[in-house]
Amino acid sequence: MKSFRDPVHNLIVFQDEDQIVIDLINTKEMQRLRRIRQLGLGNIAYPGAEHSRFVHSLGVAHVMRRFLDTLREGRDPLTNRLQRDLQDHRSLALASALLHDIGHGPFSHALESVTHVRHERFTIGVVLSPHTEVHQVLEAAQTGLSQQVASVIERTFEPSRALVKLLSSQLDMDRVDYLLRDALMTGAGYGTFDVEWLLHAMRIGEVDGEPEVGLDLKKGQSIAEDYIMCRYYMYLHVYFHRTTRAAEVMVEKLLQRASEIHAVIPGFHALNALLEGRLRPDDEASLALYLQLDDGVLWTAMHMWTEHEDPILRDFSQRLLHRKLFRAVDVQSEQEAKKLMKKMEKKAIVYGVSTDYYAIYDTAASHAYHDPYIAPVGKNAAGMGDDHTHSSVGASESIYLFDEVGRPHELADSSFIVSAVRNRSVNAMRVLFPEEWSL
Amino acid sequence: MKSFRDPVHNLIVFQDEDQIVIDLINTKEMQRLRRIRQLGLGNIAYPGAEHSRFVHSLGVAHVMRRFLDTLREGRDPLTNRLQRDLQDHRSLALASALLHDIGHGPFSHALESVTHVRHERFTIGVVLSPHTEVHQVLEAAQTGLSQQVASVIERTFEPSRALVKLLSSQLDMDRVDYLLRDALMTGAGYGTFDVEWLLHAMRIGEVDGEPEVGLDLKKGQSIAEDYIMCRYYMYLHVYFHRTTRAAEVMVEKLLQRASEIHAVIPGFHALNALLEGRLRPDDEASLALYLQLDDGVLWTAMHMWTEHEDPILRDFSQRLLHRKLFRAVDVQSEQEAKKLMKKMEKKAIVYGVSTDYYAIYDTAASHAYHDPYIAPVGKNAAGMGDDHTHSSVGASESIYLFDEVGRPHELADSSFIVSAVRNRSVNAMRVLFPEEWSL
Amino acid sequence: MKSFRDPVHNLIVFQDEDQIVIDLINTKEMQRLRRIRQLGLGNIAYPGAEHSRFVHSLGVAHVMRRFLDTLREGRDPLTNRLQRDLQDHRSLALASALLHDIGHGPFSHALESVTHVRHERFTIGVVLSPHTEVHQVLEAAQTGLSQQVASVIERTFEPSRALVKLLSSQLDMDRVDYLLRDALMTGAGYGTFDVEWLLHAMRIGEVDGEPEVGLDLKKGQSIAEDYIMCRYYMYLHVYFHRTTRAAEVMVEKLLQRASEIHAVIPGFHALNALLEGRLRPDDEASLALYLQLDDGVLWTAMHMWTEHEDPILRDFSQRLLHRKLFRAVDVQSEQEAKKLMKKMEKKAIVYGVSTDYYAIYDTAASHAYHDPYIAPVGKNAAGMGDDHTHSSVGASESIYLFDEVGRPHELADSSFIVSAVRNRSVNAMRVLFPEEWSL
Amino acid sequence: MKSFRDPVHNLIVFQDEDQIVIDLINTKEMQRLRRIRQLGLGNIAYPGAEHSRFVHSLGVAHVMRRFLDTLREGRDPLTNRLQRDLQDHRSLALASALLHDIGHGPFSHALESVTHVRHERFTIGVVLSPHTEVHQVLEAAQTGLSQQVASVIERTFEPSRALVKLLSSQLDMDRVDYLLRDALMTGAGYGTFDVEWLLHAMRIGEVDGEPEVGLDLKKGQSIAEDYIMCRYYMYLHVYFHRTTRAAEVMVEKLLQRASEIHAVIPGFHALNALLEGRLRPDDEASLALYLQLDDGVLWTAMHMWTEHEDPILRDFSQRLLHRKLFRAVDVQSEQEAKKLMKKMEKKAIVYGVSTDYYAIYDTAASHAYHDPYIAPVGKNAAGMGDDHTHSSVGASESIYLFDEVGRPHELADSSFIVSAVRNRSVNAMRVLFPEEWSL
Repeated sequence: MKSFRDPVHNLIVFQDEDQIVIDLINTKEMQRLRRIRQLGLGNIAYPGAEHSRFVHSLGVAHVMRRFLDTLREGRDPLTNRLQRDLQDHRSLALASALLHDIGHGPFSHALESVTHVRHERFTIGVVLSPHTEVHQVLEAAQTGLSQQVASVIERTFEPSRALVKLLSSQLDMDRVDYLLRDALMTGAGYGTFDVEWLLHAMRIGEVDGEPEVGLDLKKGQSIAEDYIMCRYYMYLHVYFHRTTRAAEVMVEKLLQRASEIHAVIPGFHALNALLEGRLRPDDEASLALYLQLDDGVLWTAMHMWTEHEDPILRDFSQRLLHRKLFRAVDVQSEQEAKKLMKKMEKKAIVYGVSTDYYAIYDTAASHAYHDPYIAPVGKNAAGMGDDHTHSSVGASESIYLFDEVGRPHELADSSFIVSAVRNRSVNAMRVLFPEEWSL
Repeated sequence: MKSFRDPVHNLIVFQDEDQIVIDLINTKEMQRLRRIRQLGLGNIAYPGAEHSRFVHSLGVAHVMRRFLDTLREGRDPLTNRLQRDLQDHRSLALASALLHDIGHGPFSHALESVTHVRHERFTIGVVLSPHTEVHQVLEAAQTGLSQQVASVIERTFEPSRALVKLLSSQLDMDRVDYLLRDALMTGAGYGTFDVEWLLHAMRIGEVDGEPEVGLDLKKGQSIAEDYIMCRYYMYLHVYFHRTTRAAEVMVEKLLQRASEIHAVIPGFHALNALLEGRLRPDDEASLALYLQLDDGVLWTAMHMWTEHEDPILRDFSQRLLHRKLFRAVDVQSEQEAKKLMKKMEKKAIVYGVSTDYYAIYDTAASHAYHDPYIAPVGKNAAGMGDDHTHSSVGASESIYLFDEVGRPHELADSSFIVSAVRNRSVNAMRVLFPEEWSL
Repeated sequence: MKSFRDPVHNLIVFQDEDQIVIDLINTKEMQRLRRIRQLGLGNIAYPGAEHSRFVHSLGVAHVMRRFLDTLREGRDPLTNRLQRDLQDHRSLALASALLHDIGHGPFSHALESVTHVRHERFTIGVVLSPHTEVHQVLEAAQTGLSQQVASVIERTFEPSRALVKLLSSQLDMDRVDYLLRDALMTGAGYGTFDVEWLLHAMRIGEVDGEPEVGLDLKKGQSIAEDYIMCRYYMYLHVYFHRTTRAAEVMVEKLLQRASEIHAVIPGFHALNALLEGRLRPDDEASLALYLQLDDGVLWTAMHMWTEHEDPILRDFSQRLLHRKLFRAVDVQSEQEAKKLMKKMEKKAIVYGVSTDYYAIYDTAASHAYHDPYIAPVGKNAAGMGDDHTHSSVGASESIYLFDEVGRPHELADSSFIVSAVRNRSVNAMRVLFPEEWSL
Repeated sequence: MKSFRDPVHNLIVFQDEDQIVIDLINTKEMQRLRRIRQLGLGNIAYPGAEHSRFVHSLGVAHVMRRFLDTLREGRDPLTNRLQRDLQDHRSLALASALLHDIGHGPFSHALESVTHVRHERFTIGVVLSPHTEVHQVLEAAQTGLSQQVASVIERTFEPSRALVKLLSSQLDMDRVDYLLRDALMTGAGYGTFDVEWLLHAMRIGEVDGEPEVGLDLKKGQSIAEDYIMCRYYMYLHVYFHRTTRAAEVMVEKLLQRASEIHAVIPGFHALNALLEGRLRPDDEASLALYLQLDDGVLWTAMHMWTEHEDPILRDFSQRLLHRKLFRAVDVQSEQEAKKLMKKMEKKAIVYGVSTDYYAIYDTAASHAYHDPYIAPVGKNAAGMGDDHTHSSVGASESIYLFDEVGRPHELADSSFIVSAVRNRSVNAMRVLFPEEWSL
């Protein structure tokens, strides 16, 4: 038995029956997540939001365990089979919950703009590579478990579709933990919900023969609304925060520039491989390098680049280290954006700096068709939050409320609030340029 | 006006009259503190405790502002002069609160074992050096202010002794914030107290002609006890936590080893200066280098040292990165320690490793004479918590309860609980050695 | 200075400058509110919701004081005059906040169905009657103050319209406290909001020359939405809760029956006057009697009526005391209601009981035109929550967001969420009948 | 399944297997507890502390259920038999927890000064009387269960001594709930502890062959200290609060006076039986009368007595209703008390009032031999808090910490803090007299 104290869940306990979680926590690949902040540069705007992907991963495994335990009480006879399938895969469920972010790099989505590889592919790499401790722990527990974890994370696991949904759907354990955690750590007051009631009202059900995670019709509607509103506010105020976005875009540009000019640093093998586009999730050597990347390596590179001969790399490094960020001005239309961009490009020319780097048009938006509620794509580029939406394979795009005979009711149909939120996207359109330039 | 959300204080606001705080926050020296964790390796044992010195510094300035504002209501006619002195130095009080930790390095006390310079001297360096942004902001606000800040931090500021005590005494704003913050972030349930009531009951008074920060006799005793108990529990469970201490000691040894074998890394100018003992707070160039040090630089160095030719440096780096820490076994006496040390030294010889590095005797303890309540010296070595106790110049060693005519009553005299705590030190005596060695 | 601890606001302090609040708290009319529960029978459904109108009144005065104090910092130069008007009436504002509910009787709205007098008229009576301690304290503080308090409560006070709005509008201190308090005490997880941020974002502004309480456009929209959602959920889950409504309707019927059959009890002068329709707010003697009514008197009457010869009175008393309440069945339309009522009326005839008392059609609904957000009328009948809406004289029906030049933006225009809520009423239509009857 | 929301525990759920709890909640004897405040007149000093014995009883059953469920995970193989015994009596444990306060009257200990019967005897009466709904539900569930509940409450139940201790010992579920609840409701900031960790660390063990409730030696010491400190502070600040004690003593005197002068009220059968000393727990008729007593009946009697011809009864009734309480002056010794009493008795004679009623010496104190920590007897007289200590039959007087092989360590031996608290009693010695008299 192993217990952790946690600011979000207070007490996180894994009993002996869940020893695999403890063993996985002790792997070096999990420990690495301590050095990667969950919100990347989110602490720029919310100074308390400094939590790591490690503690979030613990939280997801914890919420998963809690839900499995409430199911054990067997309260819903309608879905006995689905529940039994879940219980049969308890270790798989917990391992997948813990490992779902294992392949994240530092400033994840900025990184992806250089690797051109989604972090999930590195997650799969870590799980399947015979050389990782994670893989070894999984296989030692049960032959073939690593392949199962990979397929849960890829949403292709068939023996328990419910398990797949518990980890990635509109109402999954990943989101439950990160919303609660990000809300607490940022201190953003409106972004929270009652996780006790949520777990109390959660149900496994079926929609057209496909297992889905949903909520009890009578008990669940208001908490579902509250959860959706929480997501909405977190995008509005935290994930798309003007200053944070400015910093993220600048890191992306910085990495692109470093790659472009081949700004390798002696001894920084992992970073150099990154900049040279040599990081591949399916290659053992490059996976090992990838796992050396963390927030500290990138910040250290920036320290060094403050003396680089390239003025752009030098300037961006200094601005990021000292938080002298670009100004981000909201625009309401493509047209307005173009106009302002033109103006800033002119200034760039006057000042003799690169228009590509000093006048930036940044958009972040939700795609309503991907996610009936809020499923931003921009956020994917932003390195925060909701990381599953880029690939819709097997993803559930709805939350269902199940009535007493198990009939599903789509949440947006029952709830005028969710219906109102669905028809709105959270959009951010901004033009970025140096703070010291006048408008 | 500038507002921040915060998990501890919820809303932190600095109005226009306190513009100096906002300007100081925007300096690069303050921004650097975002990259240094308040508890160093505290998150090893408490995974949520990942907060930076930056957010703690904000919190100290906030609590200072709150106390100054409650004084404005002028509730205590007995100490009008002392209160007026304080109000006259409002900017100084807030600036000192914000900057009190500006000279901290990464893993601060491990670092000090290599620099042989207390981090406070770097704090003074940052404040006084004409080249820092901090200095420039201070002097722009008011000529001579930087010197005043330095003397408040050094506890030599005479025009308002109360201000000095508000920042460093048994009941100061620094401790108030870090106890609350460390308690929340670790999730350690017993380590908290009611800050609203504490601020409500706090008083400025005089003891033998010396201004002191204390509490109202009628309202303050229980909250004072609760605050002392909170400190006690934080030492017991957090600051002296076995695993955290093991990690801290290992970082100390790692740096000593790197210094010993001159393990410089090309391009790591700051680190190299550190290892070569060239970091001095009173030298401009070396101060600039010092300010490039942060957690990320040290972690990156460890990444590189995992391939160093020195087996000790290599091994320690790997162990720290992957959290394969030494085991720490409690001993009850010097004698028991010696016996176990002897045994482990023999093992080291058998295994062919250095006894200096692989069999370590670690003690952390409070010095009761320094601090009638709890003032550990070990902690200073530990890089966490209470950083003022090493130098007792001008420090107050008691908390006073003031009655309605302003007479001071020493807390431990009034409180049998504090009296009981005073007579106990929080001690940790441990022998550390590789986990894989049998006892 | 006087301080109170409070589960909602933690510390409630009134300094010496606000001595009038302390003096008013000590009057017997205020003390009487300790014996009247804020939510009437709300604790039937939420067993923790047992708080009194007394503690709520303290809370309203506290929130009013906090807002006045934030204004003192003078952050909004646009509305200096309005703010000064407010500050000039500080005692009036605090006294009105504290006294706004002083005329409430037990199970207030059930009572009104017998007195045919709104409780506000008794509030005015208490304030203006020369024989009450409240009146005497007000006049001792300042001649004419009682008349001013009365006009603030009646919304006719002209010297500071902002003050009127602070106490009764869509965003007033009364609602702020009762929503927070009811949410905490019920434990209803989704019904809360961040009062710190709300007070931080609140503004006084003008709309077409009329002062209004609103919020900063940039900071206030999300918190305004959260506040509106909180009201929405409190109506849905708490104020219109099926069981609570059943109990309230039964108390109403009980009092009507007692009045109808003249069920006076020797020695119960106040109750008897009530049942005989002799309670008038403008008559000294009857006001004094009215002030003897509290929850305990009514419960004691029910104890006695359990042995009354009238079977209806006897039965209703027993059912209420022992919580053997009527069943409340939701109906979706007038038609469905009529059908079910007919069925139950038949049963009543079969069982030989009064159809008037044993088959009850209960509706509770918001009137969208009264309140663009949620302004239920049913609730007025229900004895809980939002007590100002029955009279729209001078009431503000909108919340405004003020931009940096003071221009008002109606919340529902800016917020698609509030807009969605505005177009929905919270409705409850139910048929009530004895639990033991089959459907 | 039945769920409740609760301000203390958030969500209280009883699954179908615990149907007996739901059935018991629905009895009229349980419902009556809604009309009796847990802290009697505690809300005089802490206006938020208005919670009933009903919601506390729910809380005790909830904490009991939680502990039984954690035991199910079977974490402690050392005490399998004891744990099995407990699990075998799950319904009994939950029923006893829920019903432990069922015999409380209004202002319980003041009442006892008139009945000369401890409320526990009425509890046993309610459980065993064949005419109560409680009895009928128990026997319907299992023949003989009512007798078992009675013996658990009387601490004589032999088949599971652990169960007895879980309900009444130094660390029992009753205290856990009331300390948490009283702390939250009063808002007294230092009086709380982390119930999650407490339940996590709780153990069943054996001391000299007797089962005891204790804590894990490694995990439990700090939480045990925190729990003991919480009790200490609750006595100091809440249960023995000067104003509350004054009110309680006045109610006691009021009832004694009413009894003395035979101040019966027509129709108040229960009250009259009380005043005439006719209430007996073992008599069916008088038990039925006793169950009609609640806070409201006593307050209503006071309303009526405000016009009684006896000046003492009249005066005390008015003072209590309008909170014009006696002043309570602390004295440090018997001698000082006698001196002040003499002075006040003289004043009484001068003013022509009864010395018995207008000069009162009140003491409340803990008996260290009864309870190694804090077991006040005065509190028993005070009608609040810890109601088990009057009878020490079978009560445990220590808290034990169990090490890994099950050896018990007495808490005060391990903990210097508890040891310090043990040697102190919480004492209150006061002389009470009318506020308007000068000292």
